[in-house]
Amino acid sequence: MIVSRQVFTLPTFKTASGRTLKEVRIGFETYGTLNDARDNAILICHYFGGTAHAAGKYQGSDPLPGWWDSVIGPGKVFDTDRYFVVCSDVLCCVPVFNGHVVTTGPATVNPETGQRYGLDFPVIRYVDLVRVQRALLLSLGIDKLIAVAGPSAGAFQSLQWSVEFPEAVPRVIAVVSPGIGMDASTLAVSDMWTRPIRNDPDWRNGQYDPEHPPLSGIAEALRIAAVSAMTEPTVRLTLGDLAPADPDKSPADSILNDFLSASLLRQVGVAQARIMDANHYLYLVRAGQLFDVEGQLAAAKAKYLFLPVRTDTIATVPMNEDAVAKVRAAGLRAEMKVIETAGGHLDGLTQVATVNETISAFLNSD
Amino acid sequence: MIVSRQVFTLPTFKTASGRTLKEVRIGFETYGTLNDARDNAILICHYFGGTAHAAGKYQGSDPLPGWWDSVIGPGKVFDTDRYFVVCSDVLCCVPVFNGHVVTTGPATVNPETGQRYGLDFPVIRYVDLVRVQRALLLSLGIDKLIAVAGPSAGAFQSLQWSVEFPEAVPRVIAVVSPGIGMDASTLAVSDMWTRPIRNDPDWRNGQYDPEHPPLSGIAEALRIAAVSAMTEPTVRLTLGDLAPADPDKSPADSILNDFLSASLLRQVGVAQARIMDANHYLYLVRAGQLFDVEGQLAAAKAKYLFLPVRTDTIATVPMNEDAVAKVRAAGLRAEMKVIETAGGHLDGLTQVATVNETISAFLNSD
Repeated sequence: MIVSRQVFTLPTFKTASGRTLKEVRIGFETYGTLNDARDNAILICHYFGGTAHAAGKYQGSDPLPGWWDSVIGPGKVFDTDRYFVVCSDVLCCVPVFNGHVVTTGPATVNPETGQRYGLDFPVIRYVDLVRVQRALLLSLGIDKLIAVAGPSAGAFQSLQWSVEFPEAVPRVIAVVSPGIGMDASTLAVSDMWTRPIRNDPDWRNGQYDPEHPPLSGIAEALRIAAVSAMTEPTVRLTLGDLAPADPDKSPADSILNDFLSASLLRQVGVAQARIMDANHYLYLVRAGQLFDVEGQLAAAKAKYLFLPVRTDTIATVPMNEDAVAKVRAAGLRAEMKVIETAGGHLDGLTQVATVNETISAFLNSD
Repeated sequence: MIVSRQVFTLPTFKTASGRTLKEVRIGFETYGTLNDARDNAILICHYFGGTAHAAGKYQGSDPLPGWWDSVIGPGKVFDTDRYFVVCSDVLCCVPVFNGHVVTTGPATVNPETGQRYGLDFPVIRYVDLVRVQRALLLSLGIDKLIAVAGPSAGAFQSLQWSVEFPEAVPRVIAVVSPGIGMDASTLAVSDMWTRPIRNDPDWRNGQYDPEHPPLSGIAEALRIAAVSAMTEPTVRLTLGDLAPADPDKSPADSILNDFLSASLLRQVGVAQARIMDANHYLYLVRAGQLFDVEGQLAAAKAKYLFLPVRTDTIATVPMNEDAVAKVRAAGLRAEMKVIETAGGHLDGLTQVATVNETISAFLNSD
């Protein structure tokens, strides 16, 4: 499946905080064909470090397809022979410099000043993310969806959609969602993910030089987030066991001699850091810290499918059990199916196809 | 129970790595009375950030007693009317500057050079920690123990004791132990705990100025470790929910405005940082990363009691199930009792009294 990035522009957008932004742009991709009735659309929402590139390749030689390619495509559970699937870059999308992302956030030049917004960009909330997505879908002629689905931060967007646009959302598929609102522990963990950036002198309180971004802070932040999202089998399989980073420099000889896993994690962080924007990272974390739909569930009309991973320590099974109970307490239908895999939070990206039957039945149910 | 710190000195000590150190000193405390047969002793081993102050107070006005006071004392499960309980500061004990700790490590002045060791101090292993403790106990006339017990890093010491001195250790009580050897995930997590120190320019590759230690790095490292060790109820109860740090500065208005929980965690880290030594911290992490007794279990003669906490994400129940299986596979007796509390790893300090009956039965069993 060969795909391409398209761009949607909103001439003006008023944030939930009351600021009016000009020329708000986001990228998006579509897979499959919108039918004449325009009623076969599914919105896929991306995770924290993700982008609109949910499926397919830009060209056959791309090393990897989009991040949820295992479930989006012809004959797959989000079947592009049947559904029109849309995925957009969010506001403050983090991998700003990956060559494909189109987003609006602190790294964007404010058309009214000719300067990058920096920390003058307003704090955004999930309701802002989904309102921009709603405008995109309306521009495509799509008023009502089959479902909204996504992993982690994508689950937060999906849940937000259901309370913000109840008539548009009959079904929500929330994969590895840390509940339906922020809790004190997830807040502390996500705050921890921000500190290496804020502590990097190159961050300069958000006013960093674009030529000298806080790369080491971003790399370290990514490493901490990655460690939180992985469990033992993933770490061991992808990063090796207890081997030294340099066979000639044993970790038993000096505390300066690293283990291979630590060294690889740092390399991954450094490589990723160059395509990420530090302020976008901080803004998207803050949006998550302000996320809470519990008090608005009474407005929703959706049914909900929660898909946690058994071994996930960020979005735990008990958090999802709690979410199901709260949705039901609001008089709505909710079910949960646990993905019984060993890889933790990251399995929300890679192991969703193991519950295809559950997803398929949910999509086809009334 | 009023207690005091005593000091034990080894004129020379040869590390597992082959270095001979002069004038190795550690502090220790004892609770209860050693009987004439000298066969009523229990060794308690402290956790990563802990010290020999396991029980009692130095004076009645101390705000808090020692860290395991809930289980050590007259009539408690480690009953000082019956047992002689010993706890020592370990080599490279981290809170070097708390006014009571006596330890030997990178912050110590090398008597042979008159300079602080710094990174010239040899990498140590758990076998070094327990060999120094063994010398201490022999100096007290204690050749054989009733049991060795401790939480987390204290569990690692207890396990190491059983394979290093099989005749001395009939019983091991391993509380919130991350298994019986390092795994790739725990390695990655513990490496993460070290990075803020190593990234702090004031650390100066371990040769920091004692007048200007890397306080912000230590504070951040402590914060990350604390977040790993806590779960939602603990965070919420001790740090508050989603309140702003400053009521006049809403986190919804600027990403620079912190939540109260994040602010309190930072304050705790900063306060603790002043009593901690950065290199001791890094050395004790490395000792843990090199820990593994699985291959030596054949030498042991102990029976084992593993006490994980249900909600612990550092020392999980499956890790402990795996440990029990491995101990049994070595032909030894092992049992496990889960502490059914909500507070995660930290409950290995505060909630052990909830399984008093299990511990008592184990201590009284053959």
